[in-house]
Amino acid sequence: MMETLVKMGQAGKQAARQLALLSTATKNQALIAMAQALEAQTTAILAANQADLQAAETMPAKFVDRLKLTPQRIADMAAGLRQVAQLADPVAKYDHGWVTKDGLQIMQRRVPLGVVGIIFEARPNVTVDATALTFKSGNAVILRGGKEAIQTNTCLVSILQHTLTAQGLPAAAVQLVEDTSHASAEAMMKLNDWIDVLIPRGGKGLIQRVVQTATVPVIETGAGNCHVYLDRQADEAMAVAIVVNAKVQRPSVCNAAEKLLLHREAAARLLPPVAKALLAHGVELRGDQRACQLVPEIKPATPADWDQEYNDLIMAVKVVDSLDEAIEHINRHSTHHSEAIITPELARGQAFQQQIDSACVYVNASTRFTDGSEFGFGAEIGISTQKLHARGPMGLAQLTTTKYEITGNGQVRG
Amino acid sequence: MMETLVKMGQAGKQAARQLALLSTATKNQALIAMAQALEAQTTAILAANQADLQAAETMPAKFVDRLKLTPQRIADMAAGLRQVAQLADPVAKYDHGWVTKDGLQIMQRRVPLGVVGIIFEARPNVTVDATALTFKSGNAVILRGGKEAIQTNTCLVSILQHTLTAQGLPAAAVQLVEDTSHASAEAMMKLNDWIDVLIPRGGKGLIQRVVQTATVPVIETGAGNCHVYLDRQADEAMAVAIVVNAKVQRPSVCNAAEKLLLHREAAARLLPPVAKALLAHGVELRGDQRACQLVPEIKPATPADWDQEYNDLIMAVKVVDSLDEAIEHINRHSTHHSEAIITPELARGQAFQQQIDSACVYVNASTRFTDGSEFGFGAEIGISTQKLHARGPMGLAQLTTTKYEITGNGQVRG
Repeated sequence: MMETLVKMGQAGKQAARQLALLSTATKNQALIAMAQALEAQTTAILAANQADLQAAETMPAKFVDRLKLTPQRIADMAAGLRQVAQLADPVAKYDHGWVTKDGLQIMQRRVPLGVVGIIFEARPNVTVDATALTFKSGNAVILRGGKEAIQTNTCLVSILQHTLTAQGLPAAAVQLVEDTSHASAEAMMKLNDWIDVLIPRGGKGLIQRVVQTATVPVIETGAGNCHVYLDRQADEAMAVAIVVNAKVQRPSVCNAAEKLLLHREAAARLLPPVAKALLAHGVELRGDQRACQLVPEIKPATPADWDQEYNDLIMAVKVVDSLDEAIEHINRHSTHHSEAIITPELARGQAFQQQIDSACVYVNASTRFTDGSEFGFGAEIGISTQKLHARGPMGLAQLTTTKYEITGNGQVRG
Repeated sequence: MMETLVKMGQAGKQAARQLALLSTATKNQALIAMAQALEAQTTAILAANQADLQAAETMPAKFVDRLKLTPQRIADMAAGLRQVAQLADPVAKYDHGWVTKDGLQIMQRRVPLGVVGIIFEARPNVTVDATALTFKSGNAVILRGGKEAIQTNTCLVSILQHTLTAQGLPAAAVQLVEDTSHASAEAMMKLNDWIDVLIPRGGKGLIQRVVQTATVPVIETGAGNCHVYLDRQADEAMAVAIVVNAKVQRPSVCNAAEKLLLHREAAARLLPPVAKALLAHGVELRGDQRACQLVPEIKPATPADWDQEYNDLIMAVKVVDSLDEAIEHINRHSTHHSEAIITPELARGQAFQQQIDSACVYVNASTRFTDGSEFGFGAEIGISTQKLHARGPMGLAQLTTTKYEITGNGQVRG
C-alpha cells in the first residue's frame, strides 16, 4: 500500500517538474483534447458508471443521484475543461521584484504547488473538475475517490492519461489511487515527502477525518454553518427575500444559511413575515424562547442546534439584544464561512464586516454568492474556511505558491 | 491542563478581536512602551534569568549561551520592539476590490490571523521578538517556551502584560503557557477551536514533532539542508568566496550551506582550491568517490550524509555529470530552503532557478542571504520551508490573512 503510494508520489513529483515548465498554450491544448476525449468516450464512461450504479443499488436515492452520470453530465464535464482552458494562467507571472541593499535582484515568482492530493466521495465529476484546475495551474494531482465510484473514476482517469500521453505529456499528471480502503486514504494523508497539499472534498465527516489525521498540509473546505442577521432597521421585503434565498434556493450546499438572528427591536416586525415565507417553502423552524413566542409554528431549539449544519430545509432562529450579541454569537458558533447582516445603517454594516471572523461577510446580500463562479474566478476547487494560504472561494491562483529567484554577481554576506 | 489552555485560547480570541481593530498609532505606541518597560526592568529580568541559569548549570555551554541574557541582550530586545514599531502595518489595507455581474462590491481586506501559537525552546528573546511581530500584525499570541527558560519567560511576559494593561489594551494579547510539560505542548497542538496557526521555532526534532502531532495548521520553518552547486564554467574566485561564506560565516543557522556539488568538467579545477579554503577554516569534508580522489583530505561520505543538516563545520561534496543531475539530486535531498548555482551562463542559471523546488534559489550569491532583514522585510518570524501560505522569510505580511467584505443592496442568487 505505502509502497504503491510512494511510487505514485515519486511519479507525481516527476510529472510536476515537467508541468511547471509548460507554456499556457500547451496546457490549454491538452485541456481541450481531454474534453474531446471524454465526449468521444461517452459510451465507455456510461458503461463504467453503470457498473458502479449496479453495485450501489441499495444506497439512498440522494447518494445514487450524486454517483450517476448521463450524457448531459459528461458534456458538462467536457464544458468545464474547455472553460478552464479559457481562464488566465496563474503561473506565468512575477508578483514582486526588488533590489536589496547588497545589489541582489530578488524576484518573487508564482509557481505551482507541486503535487496536490484530493480525497473525495461519490461524485465522479470531481475527478475531471479537479484535474482541470490542478493541471491548468501546473500541478500534478493524485485523486482518491470513494469506492462507490471506482469504476467510473478508473475509466475517466484512463481517458485523461491516454490524452496526456498522446499530447506528449506525462500521464502521471493525473493519477488515481485504486485502493479505496480507509488505509489508503490514511497513508495518503501522511505522504509528506510526495504530496504538497491535501484538499478534502466532501461531507463534514470526511473533512474532519483529514484535518485530524493528515500530517501533509491541508486546506479545510466546505463546512458552512452560515448566519443571516436582521438588524433593528432591516427592510422587511429585503429581509424576506434574502433569508428565503439563503435558506431555500439550494439547501444542501455549504453557503446556504442555517441560522437566522434578529435584533430584539425588529423581531416582532420581521419574524412573522420571514417565518411565514420560510414555512411556505417547507422549512422547519427551531427557535429560542423569544422566537417561539412570536411565531407559534417555531419549535424549541436545543443548544446543539446553534453549532449544527443541517444542509436541509431546517433553520434555527434566535433573538439577540444587540449587534454586539449577534457578532459574539456568530463568532462563537459559525464555521467561519459566510455570514450576512441586513441593515440600512452604514456604521452597523461596517462594524459587522470588520468584527465577524469569517471568510465572506455580506451586507444586504445572500450568503449564496460565496462561490468561485459568482465571484468571477471562473471555477473553484473548493471554499476554504481556514485562514492559512487561502480563505473563501479558491480559484486557480490558490493552487499556486511562490518562490524567490535571487540573482547576484558574487555577493556574500558580511 | 486542557481546561487552562482552552481558557487561554478563549482569552486570546477575545483579545484578538480587539487587536484587529486597533489603529497603527496605538499599536506602535504600545510597542515603544514595551521597549521602555523592558529596559526599566533590566534588573528584574536578569534576576529571573539567573534563576534559570542556575538550574541549567549542568547543560552544555552552547545551550547555556542561548539561555543567558545580558544588559546588552535586553537592550537588543527593546531595540527590536522599536524597530517593529517603525515597520509598515500589514493590516490597514485592501488587496483587491471589484464589482460582480450582480452588482455586488467585493473587497478583499487584509486582516490578522487571530491567535498565533509559538512553540519554542531555550531562547528567551523569542518571547519578545514573536510578541513584537504578532502584536504589530494585530494578532494575539500564545507562547509556549522551554522549561529551561520558564523564569525568564514568565518575567518577560509579566512585564509585557502590565504594559498592555497600562495602555488600556488587553493583557491576553500575550500569554505564556506556564506548564512546560510535553503534555501541554501536545494539547496546544490540538487546540483547533482557539489557535489559528502554530509556528514552531527551534531544532529539527521540535519542528518534526509539531508537524507530526498538530491538527492546528502549522507553518514549518527552519530546516535547512542547503546546497551550493558549482557549474562547469564557474569562476574560481567567486566559487571560493561564496562556498566559504555559505558554509563558514555562521554554520549553526538554517541558511548555511551543508552540501557542495560540482560539475564533473569543473571538479578538477575548482574542488582543490575550494576544499583548501574550507579546510583552512576548519571544515570537515566528506565526499563521494570522485571528490575523495581529487582531494585526499576528503573522507568518504555515507548515503545518510546527503540528507543531513549538520549545523556545524562539516560539508559533504559530490561530483555530478550534468546540471540536470545536480537539479535532480537537490530536489531529492534538500529541505527546500535555499540553494545556489555559481555560473556565468545565463541559460543554465535560469534553468536552475526554474527547476529547483526551493523557497529561495540563488544565482551567483551566498545562501546566507535568506533572511527577513537581508530581504528588506525589517524582521522575520521564521523562514517557511513549506509551500502553503508563506514560503521563505516571513515578515509581518505573512502573519495576516484576508477576508472578503461584500456589500450589496438586496441581491439574491438566481
